[in-house]
Amino acid sequence: MAHILLPEGMPGIVGALAFRPETAKPLLDLAEVLLRGPNTLTPAEREMIAAHVSHRNECTFCELSHGAAAAVHLGGNYDLVERIIVDPEHAGVSGKLKALLKIAGKVQQGGKQVSEADVARAREQGASDKEIHDTVLIAAAFCMYNRYVDGLATWQPLEPEAYREMGRQLAQEGYVRDRFQGASKTTEA
Amino acid sequence: MAHILLPEGMPGIVGALAFRPETAKPLLDLAEVLLRGPNTLTPAEREMIAAHVSHRNECTFCELSHGAAAAVHLGGNYDLVERIIVDPEHAGVSGKLKALLKIAGKVQQGGKQVSEADVARAREQGASDKEIHDTVLIAAAFCMYNRYVDGLATWQPLEPEAYREMGRQLAQEGYVRDRFQGASKTTEA
Repeated sequence: MAHILLPEGMPGIVGALAFRPETAKPLLDLAEVLLRGPNTLTPAEREMIAAHVSHRNECTFCELSHGAAAAVHLGGNYDLVERIIVDPEHAGVSGKLKALLKIAGKVQQGGKQVSEADVARAREQGASDKEIHDTVLIAAAFCMYNRYVDGLATWQPLEPEAYREMGRQLAQEGYVRDRFQGASKTTEA
Repeated sequence: MAHILLPEGMPGIVGALAFRPETAKPLLDLAEVLLRGPNTLTPAEREMIAAHVSHRNECTFCELSHGAAAAVHLGGNYDLVERIIVDPEHAGVSGKLKALLKIAGKVQQGGKQVSEADVARAREQGASDKEIHDTVLIAAAFCMYNRYVDGLATWQPLEPEAYREMGRQLAQEGYVRDRFQGASKTTEA
């Protein structure tokens, strides 16, 4: 049971967003610009950073939903996403994404953990300042979203299928408020 | 030196916000509604939660600037704010605020650390569901802001006076984008 009385049947962050529309707007605006806005990092790469950080924070809801969104962006390659989330250094992705995931993992531990060597490696692998900035902010933002979801003890579905459907909606419809609320109703049904 | 090339002379998060205006907007909108929007928690109480979490995350920039904002809201009581930040259980504040600060400290460790007993204590001390929600989200949000500031290794002033001026601006002018950018220019001068 959640720590506070949240709207029933809305999974994870969706119930918390519905409880407090004033804070839902900037929280969704931030996710939309970070994960789907114009960027040299693909939406799949950004969703993988989000899912990896969520995994490290042991936030199952965010790990599975954003992992599923990444897989949808990759044409349904759930196996690759699972490998990246758990062990990015040995997954079949670019050297740049590996270096950025390393930075994201450091941010998850704490901002001061990011070293000059971590950043130098990302730069050597072709990462721009903006890509490094966005990686740090995506990782930091998921340290927020993860704590929001679990700090309220929100209700979370157990069936993997529920997360695949959420991932499809996140990947295809995004984090725009109206659509997101629509998505929550679908999941609820 | 910061990990990426940020605008010069802008302290802490201010340089990072100026680097990426697209993400600055929702980040500032979130701070404004959480810390200064209509609420049964006073702005001083909310800034103290922010400063306490920043202290636990060892983010000096956020601890000192939001601590100063809280002190300004309290008519300049820097001593009280310092005690609350470091040891809330023994500070001269309400039982409700102590219980909420306890929840905020748990969120800082990780969302799953918040226990039913923590929430029950806050409720016994008169906290509403919305106050518990906002405490969890303020704490979660500062786990983001702290990591954003330190994960980019932003430049931070060393003189206490700089933070007192920032606190005055945050308390009196808030987190509205135009004013905030104006504040950064003043600090820069």
